[in-house]
Amino acid sequence: MKMNDEFLRVFGQVIANRRHKMGISQEDLSSRAGINRTYIGDIERGARNVALLNIKRLSLALGTTPSKLLKEVENTISRSNER
Amino acid sequence: MKMNDEFLRVFGQVIANRRHKMGISQEDLSSRAGINRTYIGDIERGARNVALLNIKRLSLALGTTPSKLLKEVENTISRSNER
Repeated sequence: MKMNDEFLRVFGQVIANRRHKMGISQEDLSSRAGINRTYIGDIERGARNVALLNIKRLSLALGTTPSKLLKEVENTISRSNER
Repeated sequence: MKMNDEFLRVFGQVIANRRHKMGISQEDLSSRAGINRTYIGDIERGARNVALLNIKRLSLALGTTPSKLLKEVENTISRSNER
């Protein structure tokens, strides 16, 4: 099921931003995280309700932790609500 | 698919501990979070690869945030690895 939810959209942006900062492609992230490339694209578009083990795999592949990824999502959402 | 993974098991313990501290039942948490009671039981046993929107719902129902829940999981795992 394809999703459309602010938390998932922002999670996808956080993943894409960190991937861009590392200068790696979706293909590279896919192979580092062991997650299908198409699924990485869906996650970055916020179209997937990504499960905890994939959040862990993504955080390892991006050199961070699950809690830091989600803290970044929460901060981005609270900043956008302040505007 | 039933899972068995340290991260999921510790996530389940964190949920159960916080629920106990609030003095509420699985039934109460189920109705607060809008998540099936059987599914809450599975999550607390670490048998479910819980998805991001359910992590958000659980954190709201427990009066915390997704990042704080996961930070607690990470801290618990790193403490158990130090032993």
